Parts: sequence; structure tokens; C-alpha cells
Amino acid sequence: MIHMDVDKFVKKEILAMGGGSLTRSMPPMPPNAINLLAGDPDFNQPEFISKAVYDAMREGYTHYAFGGDPAFKTAIADYYGKYGVEVDPAKQVLITSGGSQAIFRAFGTILNPGDEVLLMDPCYTGYSQPAAYFGAKIIRAAQSKDEKRLFRPDFENIEAAITEKTKAVLICSPDNPTGAVWTEAEIGRLAEIAVEKDVLVISDEIYTEFIWDGKHVPIIDKPGMEERTMVLMSFSKTFAWTGCRAGYIIAGPQLMEKINQVPIGITGMPLPFQKAATKALAEGWDFVDSMREAYKRRIDAVVPRLNEIDGVSCPMPEGAFYVFPDVSSFGVPSMPLLLGLLKGGEVLVAPGSLYGPKGEGHVRLALVKPVDVLEEAVDRLGKYFSGLKG
Amino acid sequence: MIHMDVDKFVKKEILAMGGGSLTRSMPPMPPNAINLLAGDPDFNQPEFISKAVYDAMREGYTHYAFGGDPAFKTAIADYYGKYGVEVDPAKQVLITSGGSQAIFRAFGTILNPGDEVLLMDPCYTGYSQPAAYFGAKIIRAAQSKDEKRLFRPDFENIEAAITEKTKAVLICSPDNPTGAVWTEAEIGRLAEIAVEKDVLVISDEIYTEFIWDGKHVPIIDKPGMEERTMVLMSFSKTFAWTGCRAGYIIAGPQLMEKINQVPIGITGMPLPFQKAATKALAEGWDFVDSMREAYKRRIDAVVPRLNEIDGVSCPMPEGAFYVFPDVSSFGVPSMPLLLGLLKGGEVLVAPGSLYGPKGEGHVRLALVKPVDVLEEAVDRLGKYFSGLKG
Repeated sequence: MIHMDVDKFVKKEILAMGGGSLTRSMPPMPPNAINLLAGDPDFNQPEFISKAVYDAMREGYTHYAFGGDPAFKTAIADYYGKYGVEVDPAKQVLITSGGSQAIFRAFGTILNPGDEVLLMDPCYTGYSQPAAYFGAKIIRAAQSKDEKRLFRPDFENIEAAITEKTKAVLICSPDNPTGAVWTEAEIGRLAEIAVEKDVLVISDEIYTEFIWDGKHVPIIDKPGMEERTMVLMSFSKTFAWTGCRAGYIIAGPQLMEKINQVPIGITGMPLPFQKAATKALAEGWDFVDSMREAYKRRIDAVVPRLNEIDGVSCPMPEGAFYVFPDVSSFGVPSMPLLLGLLKGGEVLVAPGSLYGPKGEGHVRLALVKPVDVLEEAVDRLGKYFSGLKG
Repeated sequence: MIHMDVDKFVKKEILAMGGGSLTRSMPPMPPNAINLLAGDPDFNQPEFISKAVYDAMREGYTHYAFGGDPAFKTAIADYYGKYGVEVDPAKQVLITSGGSQAIFRAFGTILNPGDEVLLMDPCYTGYSQPAAYFGAKIIRAAQSKDEKRLFRPDFENIEAAITEKTKAVLICSPDNPTGAVWTEAEIGRLAEIAVEKDVLVISDEIYTEFIWDGKHVPIIDKPGMEERTMVLMSFSKTFAWTGCRAGYIIAGPQLMEKINQVPIGITGMPLPFQKAATKALAEGWDFVDSMREAYKRRIDAVVPRLNEIDGVSCPMPEGAFYVFPDVSSFGVPSMPLLLGLLKGGEVLVAPGSLYGPKGEGHVRLALVKPVDVLEEAVDRLGKYFSGLKG
């Protein structure tokens, strides 16, 4: 090999991102460790969905479908209609390779270097890399805890953080990791701010099927918001399809024309999966119900048990399937805490600092294991934490 | 709807791309028209591949596979090994959602606004939009016809076109639309130029299984080229998987680290398709053989028939499954010719001008129909052209 400087050729925003990732810096998993790191539902596909993919392939749906399958887009528009929103399938729906690509495409439609994107603090970690890739600056609006100990949007912080350079405010409701579901009043307030300050809203709504308290309020439906909103959706959580990479964006027709122009590839999903996903939207709700019930049982089992641990304070999530307990009383930063928990407690959780400065002092547990495994995990946490106190 | 100016929020490179596309400006297809526009193989999947997707889903391969399935990457590395190239599956292979995403990702790794990418003229049209999206300038090196009337690289033009701003030279061999297969000497010469001028080579090799004359020469294997080459590959043509969106990039380990950092999404292909594609690489070669034979029969039927038409000059392609006849003698620009052919001749072809200025005076026929249909198409062309002469 001739030595050469690859960096010379690399897009400067990538060089600025630096290398490395959480996964790379992780120590090896102890053999008996319980992995609650990723939000990967532990449910397998019902037979009819697997069969639908097979059937589509046998029926010859393996050829180009430029712009996506119209029947699938119609099914998506109909589905979103349950929130009272009228969506034109031909002009307002774009199919993506999962929620992660929906984020990339949304950012890729609007961001030039120097632009700003406003995120809540704490918030899901997957927004940072795409923003950095496009050279945008991330600004964070610190959230405040309510009387239920849930992080909620702080509109003073949000208004103060919007500048001339802000292209969009990104929200996630139901929220990962905090578990908050934005209320009608909160969604309404943010829409007013967006119109008044003339910014877009990127609305990550991938957990809408998992709400325990409250209801989903679509911001795209608020006055003046249709051409100002990009709704990011995914089948990964709704139908436990994380490995099947299926998602979509809903936006106003004018905005969608631009979103469509990001030339990521011919279509976001293989056509057989578009066919199967159409079927899932028609017939998959028993499966979703069963997952919903399982998550609820897990939350009900885990939250009280966590609160029994001296020094841990865990609110009931209003939505999604994570718990985000406050463990700040132990005085250990969440990253070393994660490593200690993994080695000493044999439980892998996500460190709160991953979600922003306000996430520090918390850990996130993805409830993607059966109740008995989750109970065992909480017991291990309790044991490890009692060692810290002692 | 409140009126608002969406453009205000849109990434400036997208605004510069403008709207519109060939498809949008097309008149409606006459009911009996023969469509030879897109390179979408008219072969359906063999049962074992459809079954492999189904089996993978039933076996629970529907969960996150961050970084892609190692077994699939190993199968890809082994496959490319048939060209005598040693590929480290863990460090040199990245899975993409088809060839189109491989292009996007390759460009997205290196291009900043103002950078230049050198394309051959004529060349495949799918490189232009991604380059424009990243704000790069496309420079074209005019190709010259050889004694067989095939367009071939002109190294004087290539050397002259490389500037301080050139990040990469993009080649496609076997070439779409020209049908040329770059020779050992040509690949060697380009590698020397790339090293000497210190530029990368993006090598689109998606038609390597369809070579009629000559052999595939991998440029990544040439001295000094490992960390200077991105090989773009796809299952779309090899296994007639256009609707299944499957592709990959092979590059040197250092360069691959950077290619990996473009945050397009969690993985390029659904895991069940990664499993099925692994099986295709092991057991799909009879299927590929049968397609290869069919294409060869089509070429052998179509090319002489085209040359029988007064004023048409069509070389035998060395590779891929297109023919690219010279129709300049009719004195009609290829875009109006396309529209006339569609309306008057009921055959849809691609206008040569789509592939660059040197493509003008040509049309491209994708041989994605059975021989009898292709013969009928050529007869219609002949009839239409004789009307033009008369």
C-alpha cells in the first residue's frame, strides 16, 4: 500500500464530525448481561406480514417503483387520517428507509452550513450526526420537569433559542427518551411560535401508537403549519420492523416537492416491503395491540420497582417504551455509570448524557425484554446502586 | 392554507437544481407503445430467492443489524474476490439501498460546493443530480469512437479536464449507455493518471456480469488505487432486483471509514434482503446465466436489424444490455426524436442528449423485452426513420 492522505478528499463536514461512536468505545458485553440499550422491540413478525413480502416477490413486485407504490402511499395517508389530518398521498407522502433516513432527508432538504436546528434537551441522539453532516449548528432548548417529574418543553427557552439562522425546531412526541407526550396546549403553542418566528417544525412521531396517558396531537394540522411541518414516521416501532427499514415523511405539497429532490436513491423501501407494509396498515392492528399491552405491563412492573431503589426517581412515561430514571443522587456521571453498571451490574443501559446536557444524571432503559428479564435487570441496578450508596 | 415561501427554508443547492424531470415532461404513453426507456430487467425472481426473504423473516431476522449482516458482507467480499481482489468484509464493504444510493453516498463522502467531478461524455445520467445536490461542478471528458464505432475514453481529454478542484473521476465499465468495456490498458492508464494527478476514482461496476467481449478489470487493484477507489455495485442488474434496492460499495479501509460516516440511515438494506442476497451470491448463478443468455440473444437479434435501417449505425456492445445507435444522419435532435418516435413510432427510447453533449445524435434502447418484442420495436423505428428520410 502506498501511503496517502485520505482526509484530503473527504467532505469537510465529515472531518469535523470526527470518528468514533458509543459502540466502538464500549467494553465487551459480559455473557449474562441484559441489554436494554437499543430501542429494538423484542417481537417477531406475525406470519401474515412475512407472507405478504413473499407473495409480493412471487407476484413479480420486484421491479422499479419510481416514487414508491401509490397504493402504499394511499394507505399511509389513510392511516394518518385517523388524527383528523387530510393527506394527499400523491403529493404529501415520501417513503424512506426507516426513521433514520427520514431524519437525514428532512435535514438534507433544508440545511446549509451555518444554519441552526433547535433540539429539545434532552432528546433522542440520532439527530446530531445528520445535523453535523450538513454543517448545521445544533442549539438546545433545556426542558423543565413537571410535577410528575417528566421533562416538558419550556417555551421561554424555545423562544429565546430561535435566531435568524434557525431553520427548524425538532420535536419528538411521544418523546424518546423522556416519555412525555406533548399536550394540545404545548403543540398549539409551538405552532404559534413557528409561525411567528417563521421557522419549520420537524415532528418525529414514530411512537404515536404507544401512548399511555394523553393523546397524539399532530402539529401539521395547526393553523399555518401544513407547509411548515415535516412529519417523520417509521414502521420500526409501530410494527417492530427495525430490521426492515421502513419509514415515511408527510409534509405540505410545496415542501414535499423539495424533500423529494434529495437524491438519496430510487425509493426508500424495496417494493415487496411496501406491499407488506400496506397489508400491515390494513391488518396489523391486533399485533400492535398485543405489543402495546406487553409494553404497558412492562412499564407497570418496572417503574414502581425502580422507585423502590434508594436514590432512584423514575416518572411514569406518558408514551413510548423507555424509562428515564433520575439517578443523579449517586453523583456519578452517566457515562462512567453506564460502564460500571455493565461491568458490575451486568445491565446495559444508555447514559443520559447521550441525550444532551439535561439528560446527565439519568439513564435510559429500553423495555424491550419480557417482564421477568426487566425485573431481574432492575434488581441488578438496585444491587449496584446500593453498593454505590454504601 | 396561509401562503408562505417554502423556498426560503430550502437548501440552496436544491434550489439551484431546479425542478422538473424527464418523466414529468413526457407525453402520455400510447397504449401499444413498447417501453425501452428504463434499464429494468424483465426477469422475475427465482423461487429460492423469494423463499429466502420469507425464511429470513420467519427466522426473526427483522431486527436492527447495525452496520449490516457480517455474513452478507463476507459473501460480497468473496464474490468480488473472483476478480483477484482481496477485500476485508469488515473494513471494506458497505451495504447500500441500490446503486443509486451508492452514488449518493460516494459523492456525499467527498463533495463540498465548488468541487469538481469528472464524468465521461456520454455517460449514465444518474450521476448529475447527486453531484448538483452537493454543489459540485460536473466536468465532462468527451469520449471518441473507436474502429468498432464504440465510444471509448480519451485520455488526453481526461488529463486536460482534471484541475486542482477535481475530487474524483467517475467511470462506468461495462458502460451504460455506450456498451464499452474498459480494457486492461485503459484501466491501467486511468489508474496512473489518478495517482499522478492525486484524484479518486469512482468506479461504477454494476454491469460486470454482462460482458460480451473483453473482461472486467477492477481498478481498485491497480498500484496505489486501493485507498483511491470507490467501487459501486448493485444487485439490481446482476439479479434483476431493481425493486428490491440492494447495492454496496467497496473501498480501501481508510476511505471506507469516511464513507461510513454519511448518516443516510441505519443500514442500506432490510435484513431479510441481506440474507436473501447472501443466498443469491451463493446459489443464484444459474439464474444469472439464463439472463445473460437472453440478453445475448437480444443483442444478436437487434444490432444487425438496427444496422439494416438506412441512416442508423449501431455498434455491438461489449457489455451491459443497451444498444446506443447513432441516428445523427436524420438531423433531428434526440429529444424531439424521442417524442416523435413515441407518438409516431410507438416506441419509447432514451434520448442520447440525456447522457451528455456527445450523446446527442444517439438514442438508447434498453433490451428489457423478449426478442420478438424488440424486433417489433426495431421495425417500428425503421418505419419511423424511413418516414424521416422520405
